[in-house]
Amino acid sequence: MPIKPSLRSAVEPFLAMDVLQRAGQLERAGRSILHMEVGQPGAPVPQPVRDAAAAALRDGRIGYTEALGIRPLRERISRYYQDRFGVSVSPDRIAITTGSSGGFNLAFLAALNPGDRVVMPTPAYPAYRNVLNALGLVPVEVPVTEDTRWALTPDQLLALHDEEPVHAVLIASPANPSGTVMQSADFQFLIDACSENNILFISDEIYHGLVFEGAEETALGHSDDALIINSFSKYYCMTGWRIGWMVLPEVLVRPVERIAQSLYISAPELSQRAAIAAFDATDELEQIKDGYRRNRARLLDAFPKIGIPDFLPVDGAFYLYANVGHLTDDSARLSAALLEDIGLAVTPGADFDQERGARYLRFSFAGTEAAVEEAIERLGGWLSAKRNA
Amino acid sequence: MPIKPSLRSAVEPFLAMDVLQRAGQLERAGRSILHMEVGQPGAPVPQPVRDAAAAALRDGRIGYTEALGIRPLRERISRYYQDRFGVSVSPDRIAITTGSSGGFNLAFLAALNPGDRVVMPTPAYPAYRNVLNALGLVPVEVPVTEDTRWALTPDQLLALHDEEPVHAVLIASPANPSGTVMQSADFQFLIDACSENNILFISDEIYHGLVFEGAEETALGHSDDALIINSFSKYYCMTGWRIGWMVLPEVLVRPVERIAQSLYISAPELSQRAAIAAFDATDELEQIKDGYRRNRARLLDAFPKIGIPDFLPVDGAFYLYANVGHLTDDSARLSAALLEDIGLAVTPGADFDQERGARYLRFSFAGTEAAVEEAIERLGGWLSAKRNA
Repeated sequence: MPIKPSLRSAVEPFLAMDVLQRAGQLERAGRSILHMEVGQPGAPVPQPVRDAAAAALRDGRIGYTEALGIRPLRERISRYYQDRFGVSVSPDRIAITTGSSGGFNLAFLAALNPGDRVVMPTPAYPAYRNVLNALGLVPVEVPVTEDTRWALTPDQLLALHDEEPVHAVLIASPANPSGTVMQSADFQFLIDACSENNILFISDEIYHGLVFEGAEETALGHSDDALIINSFSKYYCMTGWRIGWMVLPEVLVRPVERIAQSLYISAPELSQRAAIAAFDATDELEQIKDGYRRNRARLLDAFPKIGIPDFLPVDGAFYLYANVGHLTDDSARLSAALLEDIGLAVTPGADFDQERGARYLRFSFAGTEAAVEEAIERLGGWLSAKRNA
Repeated sequence: MPIKPSLRSAVEPFLAMDVLQRAGQLERAGRSILHMEVGQPGAPVPQPVRDAAAAALRDGRIGYTEALGIRPLRERISRYYQDRFGVSVSPDRIAITTGSSGGFNLAFLAALNPGDRVVMPTPAYPAYRNVLNALGLVPVEVPVTEDTRWALTPDQLLALHDEEPVHAVLIASPANPSGTVMQSADFQFLIDACSENNILFISDEIYHGLVFEGAEETALGHSDDALIINSFSKYYCMTGWRIGWMVLPEVLVRPVERIAQSLYISAPELSQRAAIAAFDATDELEQIKDGYRRNRARLLDAFPKIGIPDFLPVDGAFYLYANVGHLTDDSARLSAALLEDIGLAVTPGADFDQERGARYLRFSFAGTEAAVEEAIERLGGWLSAKRNA
């Protein structure tokens, strides 16, 4: 046989990327495009982070670091858990990763064997499924509904576990694409069910810092056996720096370190040194968050009025995940029409939910207030014209 | 069962990391340590690279990029192949990766299925074996000897292929830990044997730019089906920036892109923008290389005189891989003794060759000329004292 791709490389491409690409084409052709498709802050990196990076650059020696990251950053993150949640965690259990992407990869490799089952509620971030598949693991997707406030319950989990052993559960709160935050008691019951059944609880806390309704909680407050994944990409506006962290159960520290040595060597040093300063950028970051808060309020008020009344609870993150089933049963087509007709770029739900996503769209409100206002205007006009057509 | 590490996480730790850690301890305790254990340039990042990074920082918007990397960098690398080797390669076939580490991971995932056999000569870079094992692939290590000038031959490969199909061959030239460069005809015969038998040829060209004897060749000059892995870490002195690239056979471009979207999102943007400028830093980089050249000449002259006459051909890279079998059959112990006794940090051969490595040490000469001179002095004195003891 000639050179050919592996079977496991047949993962789904992101529809969001297609939207992004077409939006770029239209933009270069002179069209005004409103970007509500991208999951990254519109704001630049905070000044203290830039200053720290510039200082590291002047020094000039940007080298490999220890595989688990530079000690001052691991210590600073440990202090963050103390300050923010009153939770004490040793820097030894903190691993610096190349974005949360690096964290997921290392967590899956270090904790799970090929064929192991990982339960996750859907809709969910599509990379979960793709990375699990690429590594020979088995994603078990559980469609969640309004009945449980879009949360996976211990009953659902244990029913699956009874059928065939479950090895890990993967939960994001706030979630992507919905922004929905799990209620505190629900969160705790699920973690407890995992502890009692020796199921690894993987908590994706990448949208921490961005909660508008309810309170954010770290799984670390409930269990030392939970595996926490976080990142400087979202609240801290450092997407392109590829820098994140994990808090590991004691028993996984050395396995993660060994794999990271071979698979990553280390996270980018400049990003590591700059990330320490991200914790000193609170004023700037809270101002950015206030912008998201105003965007969110504006959308929650306007969307029902323009004809999109049904969406998941927008507790946090910077997404609104809307049911557009009354408009289409092919949201990828709707997304394409909105882009062509009114220059509004949004992500089709099929990226997040292969079953029900064709009736959903994800709107990111991480951009400017002016862009959100203009999006409401254009979308309202377009929907109204459709109704009157 | 409680939470426990996966079987595949039981990869070998790097002995080099233990040496590095102990060297750091001794240094903090006030000892003068000569670092010949690390595979990274002692020189800081070239000024044009720092300038480009500083400009990107002032702009402040450091975001996700396309999964395969920013177009200007892919185009610049394409031009490099034209200028340096007279080889024409479309930017579409070039993928920017998070170091060569990211390249290996993506290449293995995109091109190989679990259980596939990958042949490589030993001694070799230990991460090859570790990453292959973690991904369910089967490293087939072929000890090479002086008889073939330390190169894998088509005969050796095809004999293995006859026993049980081989899916890929992984060759580094210049090699790590030896710096040995394959002779041109040998290189071509091996690539041809792969083409004829539909075996993927993976060419690790990370030490390109650092050849002192003979000429470097890219596998791309021999075959469009070869998969090239390269990096800005070594010649370009950008280790900690975590930035590298692949040149892919056409058929692997989309598979790599899809996996990269989920597994990495993108390489660090700041590093991508800065790397473009690395091609404009030739004067500075050639001066650094001249330092390696002088270090190399000094070692080649001095080592036989102080009692280490036997090493692999030091054609390129910045390593000397020495046979110390006349001194020890446990080079990890010898390495520890050299560190404790004379503050000389070197890497035990077992990292690179599980079978014969206990009789070898790797000396990196990427540091300053003064450090190399001092190392010869201390090592010569230590060996002489041993002989007279």
